[in-house]
Amino acid sequence: MTVGQTSDAWHPIPVTDLMSIITLLTDFGTQDYFVGAMKGVILSINPDATIVDISHEIPPQDIETAAFNLLSCYQDFPSGTIHVAVVDPGVGSDRRAVLIECANQFFVGPDNGLFSWICDRENGWQAIHVTKERFFRHPVSKTFHGRDIFAPVAAALSKGVAPREFGERLTDIVRLETLEPTNVDDNTIAGRIIHIDRFGNCITNFTSEHLRSRGSTAWRIILNEREISSFHDFFAGAAANEIFCTMGSAGFLEICARNASAANVLNVQCGQKLLLRATALTEIAAR
Amino acid sequence: MTVGQTSDAWHPIPVTDLMSIITLLTDFGTQDYFVGAMKGVILSINPDATIVDISHEIPPQDIETAAFNLLSCYQDFPSGTIHVAVVDPGVGSDRRAVLIECANQFFVGPDNGLFSWICDRENGWQAIHVTKERFFRHPVSKTFHGRDIFAPVAAALSKGVAPREFGERLTDIVRLETLEPTNVDDNTIAGRIIHIDRFGNCITNFTSEHLRSRGSTAWRIILNEREISSFHDFFAGAAANEIFCTMGSAGFLEICARNASAANVLNVQCGQKLLLRATALTEIAAR
Amino acid sequence: MTVGQTSDAWHPIPVTDLMSIITLLTDFGTQDYFVGAMKGVILSINPDATIVDISHEIPPQDIETAAFNLLSCYQDFPSGTIHVAVVDPGVGSDRRAVLIECANQFFVGPDNGLFSWICDRENGWQAIHVTKERFFRHPVSKTFHGRDIFAPVAAALSKGVAPREFGERLTDIVRLETLEPTNVDDNTIAGRIIHIDRFGNCITNFTSEHLRSRGSTAWRIILNEREISSFHDFFAGAAANEIFCTMGSAGFLEICARNASAANVLNVQCGQKLLLRATALTEIAAR
Repeated sequence: MTVGQTSDAWHPIPVTDLMSIITLLTDFGTQDYFVGAMKGVILSINPDATIVDISHEIPPQDIETAAFNLLSCYQDFPSGTIHVAVVDPGVGSDRRAVLIECANQFFVGPDNGLFSWICDRENGWQAIHVTKERFFRHPVSKTFHGRDIFAPVAAALSKGVAPREFGERLTDIVRLETLEPTNVDDNTIAGRIIHIDRFGNCITNFTSEHLRSRGSTAWRIILNEREISSFHDFFAGAAANEIFCTMGSAGFLEICARNASAANVLNVQCGQKLLLRATALTEIAAR
Repeated sequence: MTVGQTSDAWHPIPVTDLMSIITLLTDFGTQDYFVGAMKGVILSINPDATIVDISHEIPPQDIETAAFNLLSCYQDFPSGTIHVAVVDPGVGSDRRAVLIECANQFFVGPDNGLFSWICDRENGWQAIHVTKERFFRHPVSKTFHGRDIFAPVAAALSKGVAPREFGERLTDIVRLETLEPTNVDDNTIAGRIIHIDRFGNCITNFTSEHLRSRGSTAWRIILNEREISSFHDFFAGAAANEIFCTMGSAGFLEICARNASAANVLNVQCGQKLLLRATALTEIAAR
Repeated sequence: MTVGQTSDAWHPIPVTDLMSIITLLTDFGTQDYFVGAMKGVILSINPDATIVDISHEIPPQDIETAAFNLLSCYQDFPSGTIHVAVVDPGVGSDRRAVLIECANQFFVGPDNGLFSWICDRENGWQAIHVTKERFFRHPVSKTFHGRDIFAPVAAALSKGVAPREFGERLTDIVRLETLEPTNVDDNTIAGRIIHIDRFGNCITNFTSEHLRSRGSTAWRIILNEREISSFHDFFAGAAANEIFCTMGSAGFLEICARNASAANVLNVQCGQKLLLRATALTEIAAR
């Protein structure tokens, strides 16, 4: 984790854009009362809030998986949406609570990197260190800030409380390792698997911009001494059990297996390093 | 799969019946951002939509399970409800996107049979081949039409866009194998297991109408050379581990085991053939 | 189970407090259409209802787990909220349907103890034996009262139907074993594990009141001939794999293991007896 800098400008979201859509993303599961309690707290403060579950099945304490999922859908929500994310291994310790304004939306949660990939992608963001206890549910438990801090802060925000009222401005937030791949040479970019979805598809940190950035239309992935050079536009285009690449719906290149888990077949895990290599034009001509 | 014909008449749902209730039924699971993205797209177009999750735990690509679940609950929703179902093994290929108007409700999804049992049950339906890209989310991915086509079309519909604006009328849709059992002889009807629920109850395609249609009040199920002649009104009426039949809440005869999975005990799977045989009156008298 | 008495006074919730928030807590899972059907029924009666899922993952027929979860979050909901809980092993038998008014909220479900811990905690409650079939969905199935009785009753209630219109007043309801621990001697209280959450944390029936009620600030838990004397305010304060106690977010003392399941490590199950023993001041001084 690294610490980043905020942009200088402060661009508050216009009040007219304020909406009462509040999304929830947690590792709480759906067996227990945890999510219900958060919703009760929100509706007690703002009965008109529209609450949307993004997921409560994030693997316990897996900040990167939560960050990936929020990164992959926040742009689909309307301006003024308030996203609450609670994957919070440091709950009760001195980790900070943050409210971030970015991309005309709000992000509320622990300051542990959950929102940093969104801030990296967008130009400009502002953050508040949430400290004003008058907005909290009392008594504030040591173990459930989702209910006692993040839910009531989001609800207050949806009622029109200005971000600055929740605490002092922060000029840095905790950052996760950047999603930007590194250039190795003219034909090669080094990246990693940033997410494995429930189907076993392996999402890389290569985007269509990386594919367009070099003078080649033919690419291959090099991973665990294996090469994957088959690219398809959609699943139904692949042969049974074929391992192939496709530009996924989250905007990243994905490694997939038709009717199988690519992660299992390739024996890879999240974080796995890989290379994206352009096939030189001379090489293509020689085929 | 067979191809069926639409009815001739076109009966548009009156505008006054239009509601902004949109249900979602998918095989996306709840671990990933997929469902959240669909909801974001809907709320971006119609922030007043009421979104209802029917299920996101349909086994991957299992069209019949999705069709059964929607069949079992669409009648409980108010007139004007918009049902979006996305179990879509053919996504990205040339399978069509459809919008069906039936039973004063709307059904949006891939044209792969998801809605055919509902059309079979109801008298009259109209279908539109959804092609007008101005209603889609752009760019349209090759792998996630739930977000890019079906969600925005449903949201536009909930805002009052007329069905015909989404594309040309279709006179056929893809159909699943009918749910109607076949008559074997005066006392016997041949059917199949159409669904196994999470408790292991085996739902057949026999309804109370079939039971009433013959001159008998005593019936037995014949399945894998086993006979089940115990009928109970409710679970608590059965002995422990007893295998019995009951008229289930979806309107079909179910084979159940008290406190156990009937599917496991009987070793049956979805699609399994079975017979429903009336006990002749002479046979009853002889007992 | 024991049978309790209602309080004498009848304090109807003021109409101005009536809200259309309806929560659902069931053991139906989310694979099948069951929850969708309940929501459809509610929205058909009250399209403006705000429906909140507390959980549908209660272990099948586990009334105590459902009761614990509702007890742990009902206070977070606003006055006038209607809670529908359906964990109903006796469905179709002669168990009663109840509507309880308590703590300015409503509780609708089978009369099997689901709400008794809430009634125990609050001062005063009123109960109605729900019998008026004109509020039900017809035909009433023998196996799915969640859809056919509890959902439509809750929806009617949210539209302003007075509780007394649903049936006659009850002076008793089915009660679960009380959550109140028993005093053993001056230093010792006997309790039990009342819930194990998804992380394996073991929730006891000791509250901070019990800890304050004796002249000691040092306590230990005695469980399976093992003593646990480590108390932490929050998870991050414990050493890796340490077994410790913390005051949990539901208001009860919990036994936890950092990064592990305390239930597995201690090999305990729900219902397990344990002792809470105060360390005498002389004992502390002698250390």
